[in-house]
Amino acid sequence: MPGVGPRPESPEEPPAQEVLLLAAAYVSDAQYNRNVPFETSPRAIRRYYFYNNWTMRVAIYFFICVDLSLALFEEPALFPLPFLATSVAEVICLTAFCGRLVHFASITSRVVFWKDTKNICIMVTIVLTLIDLIIYGSLEAVHIHGVRWSRALRPVFLISCPESRQIRRAFRSIRNTLPDILYVFLLFLFSVLVFSLMALKLFGDRGLRTAEGAPYFTNILEIAFELYVLVTTANSPDVMMPAYNVNWWYSLYFITYIIINTYIFMSVFLAVVYNNYRKHLKNEIRKLAYLKRHKMIEAFNLLKVQVGTEFVVKEATWRQLAKVVAPDISSSHLELLLRISDEGQKGHVDKMNFLRLADLLNIQVVTVNIKRHPLESWVPWIYQSSASLLVQRMVRHRIFVWIYDIIILINAIFIALDEKNPFISCAEWLFLSLYVMEILLKLYTYEPTAYFGRRQFWNWFDTLIIIAALVATVTNTSIQSAKKYNSQQILDIVLILRILRLLRVIVSVQRFRVIVTTLMNIGPTMLTFGGLVFVVYYAFAVIGMEMFHSKVHFFDPNFTTPDALVCGNPALKGSAFARDRYCKNNFNDLASSFIVLTELTVVNQWHVLAGGFALVTHQAAKLYFILFHAVVVILVVNIFIAFILEAFFVAYSLEKSDIETAIEKKIQELGVGVQEEDVKDRKLTENMDTKDGSFSREDGDRRRTALKGLYCRIASKKYRTVDALLQRMFESEIAPEDEGPSLDEILNLSPSDIYPKSPNFENSA
Amino acid sequence: MPGVGPRPESPEEPPAQEVLLLAAAYVSDAQYNRNVPFETSPRAIRRYYFYNNWTMRVAIYFFICVDLSLALFEEPALFPLPFLATSVAEVICLTAFCGRLVHFASITSRVVFWKDTKNICIMVTIVLTLIDLIIYGSLEAVHIHGVRWSRALRPVFLISCPESRQIRRAFRSIRNTLPDILYVFLLFLFSVLVFSLMALKLFGDRGLRTAEGAPYFTNILEIAFELYVLVTTANSPDVMMPAYNVNWWYSLYFITYIIINTYIFMSVFLAVVYNNYRKHLKNEIRKLAYLKRHKMIEAFNLLKVQVGTEFVVKEATWRQLAKVVAPDISSSHLELLLRISDEGQKGHVDKMNFLRLADLLNIQVVTVNIKRHPLESWVPWIYQSSASLLVQRMVRHRIFVWIYDIIILINAIFIALDEKNPFISCAEWLFLSLYVMEILLKLYTYEPTAYFGRRQFWNWFDTLIIIAALVATVTNTSIQSAKKYNSQQILDIVLILRILRLLRVIVSVQRFRVIVTTLMNIGPTMLTFGGLVFVVYYAFAVIGMEMFHSKVHFFDPNFTTPDALVCGNPALKGSAFARDRYCKNNFNDLASSFIVLTELTVVNQWHVLAGGFALVTHQAAKLYFILFHAVVVILVVNIFIAFILEAFFVAYSLEKSDIETAIEKKIQELGVGVQEEDVKDRKLTENMDTKDGSFSREDGDRRRTALKGLYCRIASKKYRTVDALLQRMFESEIAPEDEGPSLDEILNLSPSDIYPKSPNFENSA
Repeated sequence: MPGVGPRPESPEEPPAQEVLLLAAAYVSDAQYNRNVPFETSPRAIRRYYFYNNWTMRVAIYFFICVDLSLALFEEPALFPLPFLATSVAEVICLTAFCGRLVHFASITSRVVFWKDTKNICIMVTIVLTLIDLIIYGSLEAVHIHGVRWSRALRPVFLISCPESRQIRRAFRSIRNTLPDILYVFLLFLFSVLVFSLMALKLFGDRGLRTAEGAPYFTNILEIAFELYVLVTTANSPDVMMPAYNVNWWYSLYFITYIIINTYIFMSVFLAVVYNNYRKHLKNEIRKLAYLKRHKMIEAFNLLKVQVGTEFVVKEATWRQLAKVVAPDISSSHLELLLRISDEGQKGHVDKMNFLRLADLLNIQVVTVNIKRHPLESWVPWIYQSSASLLVQRMVRHRIFVWIYDIIILINAIFIALDEKNPFISCAEWLFLSLYVMEILLKLYTYEPTAYFGRRQFWNWFDTLIIIAALVATVTNTSIQSAKKYNSQQILDIVLILRILRLLRVIVSVQRFRVIVTTLMNIGPTMLTFGGLVFVVYYAFAVIGMEMFHSKVHFFDPNFTTPDALVCGNPALKGSAFARDRYCKNNFNDLASSFIVLTELTVVNQWHVLAGGFALVTHQAAKLYFILFHAVVVILVVNIFIAFILEAFFVAYSLEKSDIETAIEKKIQELGVGVQEEDVKDRKLTENMDTKDGSFSREDGDRRRTALKGLYCRIASKKYRTVDALLQRMFESEIAPEDEGPSLDEILNLSPSDIYPKSPNFENSA
Repeated sequence: MPGVGPRPESPEEPPAQEVLLLAAAYVSDAQYNRNVPFETSPRAIRRYYFYNNWTMRVAIYFFICVDLSLALFEEPALFPLPFLATSVAEVICLTAFCGRLVHFASITSRVVFWKDTKNICIMVTIVLTLIDLIIYGSLEAVHIHGVRWSRALRPVFLISCPESRQIRRAFRSIRNTLPDILYVFLLFLFSVLVFSLMALKLFGDRGLRTAEGAPYFTNILEIAFELYVLVTTANSPDVMMPAYNVNWWYSLYFITYIIINTYIFMSVFLAVVYNNYRKHLKNEIRKLAYLKRHKMIEAFNLLKVQVGTEFVVKEATWRQLAKVVAPDISSSHLELLLRISDEGQKGHVDKMNFLRLADLLNIQVVTVNIKRHPLESWVPWIYQSSASLLVQRMVRHRIFVWIYDIIILINAIFIALDEKNPFISCAEWLFLSLYVMEILLKLYTYEPTAYFGRRQFWNWFDTLIIIAALVATVTNTSIQSAKKYNSQQILDIVLILRILRLLRVIVSVQRFRVIVTTLMNIGPTMLTFGGLVFVVYYAFAVIGMEMFHSKVHFFDPNFTTPDALVCGNPALKGSAFARDRYCKNNFNDLASSFIVLTELTVVNQWHVLAGGFALVTHQAAKLYFILFHAVVVILVVNIFIAFILEAFFVAYSLEKSDIETAIEKKIQELGVGVQEEDVKDRKLTENMDTKDGSFSREDGDRRRTALKGLYCRIASKKYRTVDALLQRMFESEIAPEDEGPSLDEILNLSPSDIYPKSPNFENSA
């Protein structure tokens, strides 16, 4: 127990339960970067805890999923359901969102609630959806087919989740970038128009024909579209060939166009998007850091008592608070945090240390168990026998890894060979048993819980792939021998699993592992971009389905009836769309629409798709495709690239420098932290063994007694996300006594404030 | 004359002419960032001045041009010349390069000479070219056709020019990036191979056919090539359609592939290239800054005399030195620089101020002449009459600009209309005369030398376009009326000029002007990328011509003989190359090769080109195209994007912050600098008038007497190049008394030294 130092007299009462709960709410808001400043009445606090309860959050996610998946059941549907069923489901979802919003309003101050755009968005969307439902329903009742336009707004609910902060940020980024991008886009369009005029004058009167025999560059609108497509490079060099065939010099026109519009303008788009992304990212990080500081100060002010000349929080109060905020914390972990916060063991925590509480709770301290191998405890005479030790040394040896790398490569060659050969299908069994043996040998050598540790990604990967392959192969063989036929699905899975095993070679090459590790670290944040793309795709898919459904039909590719050759629509006769057999690229259901949109994102041949759908509807339909290109390829993809660039730069600067917060330093000083290091040459498990082993033997003993056997590692990978890292960098720059601007100022921070007045060499370069 | 302050006694003699010349050489090296440390003997100095003489430099550029253009005359040639002629020309060029190198060696210390890779490159290239010439010549003599492989090395001479520093830097960037990029590339290839194996197993046995009826995914090498093409998106979605037609789920395979390989890996390539570019850019800038400091200290040490306790350079010596370094400097300009360097007018310049000399000479001080309009001096009674003043007020008014913007838009509509109409061709004359009138009116209102000032880009643009259009239209009309036929060339020029006039609208929209200004500022550096691309293209074009010349022939597009339809090569029968009529995309001469390479850079349809040339030679020829893609699209284009991003970020941070060096501050203090500002709302000329006008009237008078009528503006746009700006930023960070590391250390600086030990928030974000 602490309290060895002189304990000052504290005349005050322990804080009331309500005050403690309120303070705990502030702290947990700060800990999770939640943005819920609330009222201080006891009822509001209870509502706050209920609002943040995990069941409520799961429920709301469930309703969001239901609402979004309704598109699968509405016309044009994958699985059709009557309108009544889907509309009832939708109304239930809307009620749930409404309830959640009312709940939120009841725990938030009015100013903050109405200042938050996402609340207003939710309200507007709910109202619009209801209006749309009523209109559509009444039209349906009199058998007029209406348009369910409000379905495109459904992703708003997903965006408004508290956990979708990254998606909202990306959208804010887009919104903030719009004014800048708009002028570049207008200039770009102007340039396209000027070039179109030139093309019309230069090539319009020559009677040239394209390779398909169509007239070449005779209509200004068609020229503008062709040149817009050329920016995306999708019709290069076909669009140039007729002119180039006439005269060598005309190619200069197209090359100039490509340099200006494709290379320079597209780079400028990336530069503008990236610059804005970076600027706003920094601003938001700063906002979050100040908000956190603000909330912690509020919490401190609630709990402080005066000791001597300064205000502090008593140790007992601190302990109670931590227990409320993190009910699952182990008592030894709590003890460690207290030791860090109350360095001099004075029996109370001062303001500066108190402000750190949220960060302290965020550090995942992993208790390191230096366990012996279970076999060593059960059958030590066998496990420690010389034969067993030899096996263990063999497995730990580098040559063991090499042998298995060679086996994998041989396996790859066998896979590439024809599997009809019975010898090769026998070899497959051999390889499987070799892999199983490897895992068993490793489990024999290394401690199993360490081998399957939380961070041992590749061990998990290995084992799961092998077990799945084993199960699938056995199933397949038994089906085959029992029913004399191959199940194509199971066979496909077996094949993919078999090939995925080859990925293990990556682990053996250190440089590969570094790249893959970096990619996996930014993986979770990349998934939020999946969310952003999903939201945009969903809206466009709904619009696309309304515009184009049932215009194009897919027939079996072996059909060669005239109808099948033009995708069931005579308008497509002779078009590139039909010639390339793109009939399955249609908007007839949600899944197909998503695939078409993916193809449009990849850009190539998008003009063929746009041309096809324009033929079956109207030329103006091309605008839908141009809009999609501008939004997804110019904005979303560039934000994605900006994000990857930023993440890589942060990862690079992290590699070179060693940023440690004061907290981690203190954990290090207390000697209980084993900072995880990048493992360079050895397998992860090996490294962990030796590291922990040496630690316990050499200098651990003294501290073991002091801290009752708690050994912690900081799960430092957490900091490898761009967000967390940037926030940490910024926090290390605000002085500890800086209380930050007022809440109102924080909410109104603008990115232009953040610019350094005189950038230095390192910054701007 | 200065010298008002107390002038200390200087017992030393004035420096000898040779010492002065040597010091001047150091200073001018520092001024132009030349990298020629030399010996100190008088003959070496004379050789140094001879080496840097402009005639010598022009001569060497001439020889480089001749050498490079030889490819136009050698087989396969645009303009064939006998081998003897081209080889004699080449030997002459080689002799010139050799002489230049010997000259350079004679003024450089041996260590520096041999340390410089470019010297060794030149020597190796000269030797290799000679060997190649001899082998080829002797083979030719016995009528065996050899390969002139050394022609691909010719760009080495261009790269080695002292003025090609940016190209060399880009190449160094590429070389330094290679190790990092190589592992990512290998991992990427590994991923492509794993996916190829999967595709072979999943789709190989199904007997699927592509839209053209070819077997689908049956050969592992073909699959790997198709998947590599898919990374460049050139065959999307065609490559997916057969599998997608079979089953919806197979599209997931392709989408996964595209996400991993196209989006993530390509972004990682950009991130790696950009990161390395940035790192090495900073390192080189630092090197340059230290070298400059080093040279200036050498110069100071040569000229210093002791006054009291410190070493200084006497004013007379300083004056002589400046005259030698910059012979064209005006005496009032010199006086200004002296006033800045010798602040206290003590009659000598101390070390710190002396070190700045190179920077001072680099500042382009533009003398601002506040002239009156010539008409005002000649015929004041007319020019100042109320009618004349009204005209001037009208022209200066904003509405005048708007009227002309409307005229331009109307003109655009007329251009888009059919010009066969006689009314419209009359309108063209009307527009022309309106534009001429506008220029005349402006010249009447604004002072002509100010209107055609050096920085008035748009005025020049206007006038030149209008004059050219006038000349071309008149020529065209006179030819037409005299010979009754239209010259197509002149007509094309007239058309283009007519449309270029529309660009003037850009000037009227301020946001457009800002974007265009930024682009024009980074324009010159972008041209150096043109150099880089030229070098790479040249090498690939020479190789391509050796491999593919005369394999494909171009026939008139109206020919429909079977031979013309397969580009004169039966191997192309039924290929996509022939179907798309790509016959003119061939390697039959240098110009065609360059255009094919441009098309390959744009990426789309590159697999069709590669496939075509593989059919007429060998499947292995695809490697040439894959290599080109890896080098140009993955490396060069990414470096280009990195450069644009960097340039934009520097421009952005420059916009927000106000970096002024001490020198400029001093010019401002002396009140003679009129810092040029971004003109926001008014036309450039207007702004200049008022600005300068008010300056001369308000507080200029007092200083006019003091500085003998010299009014200067700092041509600050010079600093808007990334290089100059970064160098300035870095220099402001080294302390004035810091002498930098030794010359040897400077030359060995590595980018890893530059990384900040603990990056701060602004840096890494």
